Formats: sequence, structure tokens, C-alpha cells
Amino acid sequence: MAGNLDALFKPKSVAVVGASRKPGKIGYTILRNIVEYGFKGKIYPINPKATEILGLKAYPSVKAVPDDIDMAVIAIPASKVLDVAKECGEKGVKVLVVITSGFAEVGNVEAEKKLVEIAHEHGMRVIGPNIFGVAYAPAKLNATFGPKELSEGSIAFITQSGALGIALMGWTVMEKIGLSALVSIGNMADLDVAEISEYLADDENTRVITIYLEGLKPGTGQRFMEIMKRVAVKKPIIVIKAGRGKRGAVAAASHTGALAGMDQVYTAAFKQTGILRARTVEEMFDWARAFADQPIPRGEKTIIITNGGGVGVLATDAAEEYGVPLVTPSEELKQKFRETMPWFGSPRNPVDLTGQAVVDNYVKALNIAFDHPDIDNIIVLYCRTAILEPIDLAKAIVELVRERGEQSKPLLVGMVGGRDVYEAMQYLNEHKIPAYPSPERAVSSLAAMLRYMRYRNRIIC
Amino acid sequence: MAGNLDALFKPKSVAVVGASRKPGKIGYTILRNIVEYGFKGKIYPINPKATEILGLKAYPSVKAVPDDIDMAVIAIPASKVLDVAKECGEKGVKVLVVITSGFAEVGNVEAEKKLVEIAHEHGMRVIGPNIFGVAYAPAKLNATFGPKELSEGSIAFITQSGALGIALMGWTVMEKIGLSALVSIGNMADLDVAEISEYLADDENTRVITIYLEGLKPGTGQRFMEIMKRVAVKKPIIVIKAGRGKRGAVAAASHTGALAGMDQVYTAAFKQTGILRARTVEEMFDWARAFADQPIPRGEKTIIITNGGGVGVLATDAAEEYGVPLVTPSEELKQKFRETMPWFGSPRNPVDLTGQAVVDNYVKALNIAFDHPDIDNIIVLYCRTAILEPIDLAKAIVELVRERGEQSKPLLVGMVGGRDVYEAMQYLNEHKIPAYPSPERAVSSLAAMLRYMRYRNRIIC
Repeated sequence: MAGNLDALFKPKSVAVVGASRKPGKIGYTILRNIVEYGFKGKIYPINPKATEILGLKAYPSVKAVPDDIDMAVIAIPASKVLDVAKECGEKGVKVLVVITSGFAEVGNVEAEKKLVEIAHEHGMRVIGPNIFGVAYAPAKLNATFGPKELSEGSIAFITQSGALGIALMGWTVMEKIGLSALVSIGNMADLDVAEISEYLADDENTRVITIYLEGLKPGTGQRFMEIMKRVAVKKPIIVIKAGRGKRGAVAAASHTGALAGMDQVYTAAFKQTGILRARTVEEMFDWARAFADQPIPRGEKTIIITNGGGVGVLATDAAEEYGVPLVTPSEELKQKFRETMPWFGSPRNPVDLTGQAVVDNYVKALNIAFDHPDIDNIIVLYCRTAILEPIDLAKAIVELVRERGEQSKPLLVGMVGGRDVYEAMQYLNEHKIPAYPSPERAVSSLAAMLRYMRYRNRIIC
Repeated sequence: MAGNLDALFKPKSVAVVGASRKPGKIGYTILRNIVEYGFKGKIYPINPKATEILGLKAYPSVKAVPDDIDMAVIAIPASKVLDVAKECGEKGVKVLVVITSGFAEVGNVEAEKKLVEIAHEHGMRVIGPNIFGVAYAPAKLNATFGPKELSEGSIAFITQSGALGIALMGWTVMEKIGLSALVSIGNMADLDVAEISEYLADDENTRVITIYLEGLKPGTGQRFMEIMKRVAVKKPIIVIKAGRGKRGAVAAASHTGALAGMDQVYTAAFKQTGILRARTVEEMFDWARAFADQPIPRGEKTIIITNGGGVGVLATDAAEEYGVPLVTPSEELKQKFRETMPWFGSPRNPVDLTGQAVVDNYVKALNIAFDHPDIDNIIVLYCRTAILEPIDLAKAIVELVRERGEQSKPLLVGMVGGRDVYEAMQYLNEHKIPAYPSPERAVSSLAAMLRYMRYRNRIIC
């Protein structure tokens, strides 16, 4: 039935069961988002009391729709979901996106089981129930009741918490974190984290998979590991596992009804399957940004290029703590770097261009770093100075990378400063150069890339 | 000579030796910042080739100034500093702010020693050399060549890295992190971290002291510990010690010439003296924000109030990891909380008001938390929802705190969402309610407050 997942991400037609004319209602927001975000397929509002919603002809039931329906988004009271599911099955719908809550998460286990039974009888898959929807940017599909706009990119985000997922939609827009897919998995009655990940592993628009996980369903651990092992060879997976401590596990259990389980089990499972484990949401997306926009490292040897000694020291500390090996430049390499800086600079690693550095110093040092075989990975740091406008540096970096053509070494940027530095970072991130507001976060992201490289080398070789 | 430090923070008159008419020059920027940030005392540009700079009468030398000079900011070539220092001494200047670099940090140890000798012979103190200046917001004094504007508040920041300090000036403005004092200490030829901290411990405008430290000078460790112990009883001290690892220590040594030393020694020293050690600059100011705006906790029992299960779980995990004890509500307290939420909410801790929460639910729950004797500390979380505008919640929280009058329990806020959530957090921070863009950062900040409370209770009792 895996083929049906195309209907979840690339449906040709979508019905919204429970589409509403009233702004503020979930059934209104979902329909509006599908329409206004720009879905190109057919859209069918289903509402027995309406003839037209948002300029679209409405139908009293899915069966009344004259065409095929790939995906049915269901946003009606729980008591009516089973009947509608049956109708959808008879209509030939391929996937049910069940927004409705009031199932296993409040003890209504039987109804949830029945829902899946009905779906499977008719060859349908179910995502949910108890979700805020699904979005897939390449298809211009936003079938969620979150914000209308998506920040588009190549990070897939699967979330077991709906509220967090919705809140993060707005956050990713602000932070210029580009998403390919956004999947609220809720109760995981049928489709679960593993199966969605497996689909996305082969999705050409996704380069990294991020997951907010509270817990797997009982008995699905082995399957999760088998699938994720296959996925991790193809694409990096970053998980934030919530409910780590004893008390957190109880909170998670009461939240989604999932088995939070012992944290050590998850730790071991993640390690075996090559999953990168982030501690915070911020960290997860920091890492994801690097994977989304930069090549996987080919080696360990890292150089730091900076205009500030202090941030250089902070990055050096972070490199040691996170396991990023800093290359010790040869005399020949040092001589090269020396020519990019004033006499009081340092050609060692960190390469300190000094506070007098202008664009030209950075460009020269960067070209050396890209060209030299002793260097695998590059971290560029910038402390706001009066003589170098941050946006000028950002533009020069983007231009340099563009001119050099295909990029074989990852380049990450860390910057410290005020509003204009923030804007320069936004510019870099928009142009696929990951930029972070501290040296440590840039180093932490490279460290995650190196862990992934090591895992994959171990598995593949 | 400690009394002279008043001249560093609250000078009645300031001379800028090396004041320049050319925008872009350090001697121009410092004078401009002093004038335009609004220093109310007397300002004397010293420049033998000018008669007027920035509308102020210029003098050929300090001796030519007809009035007393409390502080002389020196921004002239290193070769001329000693002569000027002597003149300043003869003039009766109280403190020298030596911007000029080219002393011990490049091996010119003798000149630096001589500078201090001259100063002490004349009863002067020296800050620097090799610094970007000093600022003290309550006196409207910005004697730095950093940005003109300061974000004003009650956090003192002492930095051994000039470039980082300047870059962070802009960052604190953007992040609404309010500073009382900003001190670049550079080579610490005379005044050092400990002595500046001791002065600020008694400064009524400073509530917390933050320090970027690369290393103490050889032989000053014992004195540092004795002084900092006294300071920590009066005010929280947060230090980021850079140059932690082996490689970082080497980088730090080459940067400031200070003895970076073994990290374990610093760890032990910080622990004994009650210094809170942050791992990153962001973390240091996260914590500082809490100390600056909230009362020191009176006890350990913490409640989390949220509208999202997911962020509640993340906060619970963080609480367990950082050592923040979450109170288990009594039946009576649970009953009270139950009345603030829909039937499917949770009155346990985290108190989950659910995604349907509006301002009224939060206000009721917050009042219960403030009133109830079982609760010492409050963390409020908010996930962006369609039915509660973040700015409405922010305004309600500020209003509630204002109406309740003197606040005896710390209140910290964590919020997740996009641009409008960011603006709501800015509003909270402007109104002295610390707000963080993730649940974990709010919890981490409360954890720092609890560590300080425990230290002080141990010392004082």
C-alpha cells in the first residue's frame, strides 16, 4: 500500500470534509490554506449545508463529487468520522487525513481501531487522527489549519505534537528555515513516523528529515529500527525525543497517549539506526539547516576563519566539546593564510584575520580554504566591526560560492552583532549558506554533519 | 584607591586624548559616542591640531584644560601613551581608559608595566590597555568606539574580548537585553575583573554581573577568589570562561596574552566562589535577563503553565535535566487549576490549559500560582494558536504583574511561534518579564536562579 503515500504528498484532488464558510473554524482555515497557498489540483469542499465556499462549488458528500478524490481531509466531529470514512472508501479515496480529535488520546480506542479497519478494507491509508494536517511545499499543498504560508526548502518535519508543529510553522518562516514537507502524525493509528520517513527518504525534494517524537506505539519499536536504518543511509534523520526524564515521560503519555518508555532504549535505538538526537528544537533545526543547504563532509579536517579572537576561542572550545577536529595548518598553508591578513593576525587555526578584516581578506582566505586539500570543512566567523558591513560580507560569500560552482566542502557561518548582522544572516540563509547567531551553533551543526558522515561511512564501507 | 573607581563610572569630566575630526577614526567615534549618547558632564577633546571637534572646544593637551579632569580616554599611538599618562598624572586625572593597543598583547610588556607605574605614582587607576572602552548607562556615559546606543538596564557586562564586546552591544539592543555597565578590560594591566566586579557589587544600578573571561593574570587567582566570594553574596555573577579545552586555551593565550590555564582549576574556583558558569554567550544573557528583572527565588517548587502539551513535555524534560523541581499539585490545588481550563485540560504539572486557552485562562491560572503557598516559581509557556494573539497574552501578563504589586515569585515565559510571537516576547522583555523563544531556555534560566539561591542560602545561613 506504500504507493498510496503519493496521495498524501502529491494528490491530484483533495476533498475537505467539514469545509466551513465561517472564518475561525478549522474547516474554513484548512480549505482557505489549500486554496490560497496555491494548490494546483482539484479542491472539493464537502458541506451538506453549502453550495459554494471560498468560490468553490461545495458538495453534500464525497460521493456527490463527480471526479476521483485522492485525499480526503476530515474535520468533522469524531462521532461522524467512521461513516464518512466508509463513504470515502466506497468513493475510492486513497488517503484520509483525519484532523478530528477525540479518539485514542481521550480513551476512545475502539473507534480509532475501527477507523483503520474501515480504511484498510477499502485500501485507504490514514494519517492521524488528532492532527493539524499535512503540507508539501513542492506540490503547493498546505492542508493544515496552521498559518497559510510555508517557508519552502528541503527539510521535512514530522511532528507528534500538533500545537508545537503549528507554532513552528510561523517560526520557520521568520527564521528562514525551508521546509519540504510538514506532517502532523498525531495518534499514528495507521501511518507512523517510520513509514512517513521511508517515503520521504526517496522524496527528491527532501534532503533531511526532522522529527519531534514523544513515543512510539507499543510493539512498533523493532519495525521502527529496521525502517529507520534504511532511511538513515539515504538521508540524515534528526530527532528530538521529548519525554526523556521520568516526569517528562508521564507528561508525554498524558499528552499523546503514546508509550514514552525508557529513555535509554531510545538512546540505544537512535545510535544503532544512525539517528542524530537533538536536545532542543532550535538545535534540531540548526543542524537541519546545514544538511539542507550544504554537502555532506568528505573528511574531518576543519578550519575556522574569523575576524575576532574571542569568537575564535569560543568556536575552538565548541569544536573540542562537540568533536570537530581542527586542522593544524602546515607551514605552507600558514604562509598562504598569512598573505590574507595584517602582520598581527594569526595564520593558525582559528585563522584570525583581525578586526581590520574587510571583504577582500575573507574572500582570499575562503578561496585558500576551498582549494587546499588539507581542509575538508570551513567555518567562517564574523564579529560586527565598524569597517566591514555584515551585508557586504554576506553578499561576498554568496557570490564566491556561486562563482566557484559546485561546492564540495561544507561552509557554515557564525555571526555576532545587532540588527544589521541579523539581516546579513537572513541573506545568507536565503542563499543557502547556513548562518547562525553564535560561533557555537555553527560548530554544533558541523559536528552533527560529521557524526552523520562517520555513521554512513561505517555502514556503507 | 578604590574610591577612584567612581571616576570610571561616574566621572564629572572626561577628556578624550586623540579626539579626531575624521569620521571612521577611533578618536572620532569615542568622542561622538560620549557627546551623542548624552553624557551630562564636561567633555574635553584633546588634539593639538584642532580648535574644535563636534562643536566642542579642543585643547592641545590635558594640561591646557582649565578645569579638573576625572577620566582621560586615551586613543593615541602606543609610543606616545607613556608621556600622556605622565601629563594626566600631573594634571590630577583619576582614571586612564587606555584604548591603545600594542602593549603586553604583542610582547611590549615593559611599556605596559611602566604605564601602571606612572599611573600609580600619581594616584591614577588604569583600565586597559587594548580595550574598546567603558560605558555606564545611568550616567549616560558611552566612552567606547562601539555603537552609539546602549540597551539600558541592570546587567553589567565585563569583557576580555573587545571585538566580542562591541558586537554584543548591537546584539543586546536587538534582543532588548538591558545593560547598566559595559567594561572592556583588555590586558588588565591594573584594574582587573575582580576589582571591577567588586565595585559593581555595590552599584545600585546593577543587579547581575556577567563576564566574558579568557584567563586571569598569573598570580591573581587567590585574590580573584577572595573578592568574587564577597561579590557573589551580594549579586549573582555569571561567567563564560573561554579557552576551556586544550586547543581553546592556546587560542585564548595567543589572543589576550592571559594565562588561560587548566580548565579544572577554573571550574573549582567558580564553584567555591558561587560563580554561575554559562556555556555560551546566549546562555549567559538568558540567565542574566532573569536575574535582572525577577526576584531571587525563595524556594524550589516550580509550576509550569502551558497551552501546548508538546512544549510542556519539553519544559518538563529540561526541568529534570537542569535541576528544577516541579511541584506535584495537591488535590486542592488541582481543583483550583481545573477551574481555569476545559475538561480535557490537565491540572497536573505542567498545567495544560490546552490549545483553546485564551487570556482569561492564563490570568486565572497565573493568579492561582502567585497566590498559592505551594508554589515558589512560575514558568508560563505559549505555543502560537489561532485563538490567542501572542501580544494579547503578553499585555495581560504585564498588566497582571503590575496590578499585583510587588512580585515575590519569579515568573519566566517561554514562547514558540513566528514574527508576532517574537514581538510579544520583545514586549514582555521591555516590561521586565523575561521571555525566551523556547521552553528550555526559560527553564535553564530558572535553574540558574535556583543554583544561585542555593549557594547564597548555604553561605548566609
